[in-house]
Amino acid sequence: MTDDPSPDPAATRMLDAAEALIRRHGPAKATVVDVARALGMSHGNVYRHFPSKAALREAVVARWLHAVVEPLEPIVTGAAPAPERIAQYIRTLAGLKRQKVLGDPELFAAYHLLAEEHRDAVAAHVATLRRHLATILRQGQAQGAWSLADPEATATLLLEATLRFHHPHHVREQAGDTGAEARLDALLAVLVRGLG
Amino acid sequence: MTDDPSPDPAATRMLDAAEALIRRHGPAKATVVDVARALGMSHGNVYRHFPSKAALREAVVARWLHAVVEPLEPIVTGAAPAPERIAQYIRTLAGLKRQKVLGDPELFAAYHLLAEEHRDAVAAHVATLRRHLATILRQGQAQGAWSLADPEATATLLLEATLRFHHPHHVREQAGDTGAEARLDALLAVLVRGLG
Repeated sequence: MTDDPSPDPAATRMLDAAEALIRRHGPAKATVVDVARALGMSHGNVYRHFPSKAALREAVVARWLHAVVEPLEPIVTGAAPAPERIAQYIRTLAGLKRQKVLGDPELFAAYHLLAEEHRDAVAAHVATLRRHLATILRQGQAQGAWSLADPEATATLLLEATLRFHHPHHVREQAGDTGAEARLDALLAVLVRGLG
Repeated sequence: MTDDPSPDPAATRMLDAAEALIRRHGPAKATVVDVARALGMSHGNVYRHFPSKAALREAVVARWLHAVVEPLEPIVTGAAPAPERIAQYIRTLAGLKRQKVLGDPELFAAYHLLAEEHRDAVAAHVATLRRHLATILRQGQAQGAWSLADPEATATLLLEATLRFHHPHHVREQAGDTGAEARLDALLAVLVRGLG
């Protein structure tokens, strides 16, 4: 189930070091040279795991995005009826994004800059969300909750319909928006009813 | 029905001149001094209609946004069943925004900068869209199409659910997205079914 991009312990240490550098000094410091210096090792050692600065930075972005995906996985494999899990998945996704974007805005801004450089990592992240939702939709199909011609397309529909609540551009505007959670719940109820 | 912010013919000429300046030279040139010069009149004459540069620029933004709202008004007063008109309204809104954003990207960028300065005009625009949708929703309520506790809140829900297709930030990314119209249609079908 997991698609953690860095299971290797040495690579994990390097990504930890890169994250610490980003947290302390901003995204410019996430380079092979800085990571090697922070860990007191040779550049060659880092290059063995990340063949370029771009590869290192992409892995940092992928791991950061994976931290959003990981808590969602138990919802995909959960036992609750699919309509409930669809709403729970998107509600949890929105909460995680809110936490990431509003919890530490400076760190988020740093990662956001990195993510803009590595659209492939972002696309892979969105593909994972879509695959998760499509899995739950197919489970609902098997349970007779709805009849969908194309669960993948419906997964995209659900992500697009709820963009206001999980896209960084809009989440950033949500700082004082105390009604957002209730509005998302109302929207999810309409969407799930509309699928049935 | 109309909320055109500039029915006065002299003010209209001044706003026309401001628009021509923006089109030719960008948003910086939409000032009282430049408009007066373009029309060969005194600053005082312009100030009589627009007491400040900010007032002039806000009126320019309001008129620009009004050009999106105007073609939507016949849908609000139309005779078709409300569920059809809800979908038609949002489909038309998305088409108008697409036209504005992608049809002349440079002019759009200029107006977008002005709009960022005048969030009140943008908020009034969104309030008009919400009022229109709430009107159609109440008509549907009277026709027995659905039973809504709060048509205003449902209008907000519909605008938020379709943001991907009419918010400038996302419309800009739609340039090569040939499937967007079909996806919006599918989303509108789910939303209208979900309201029922």
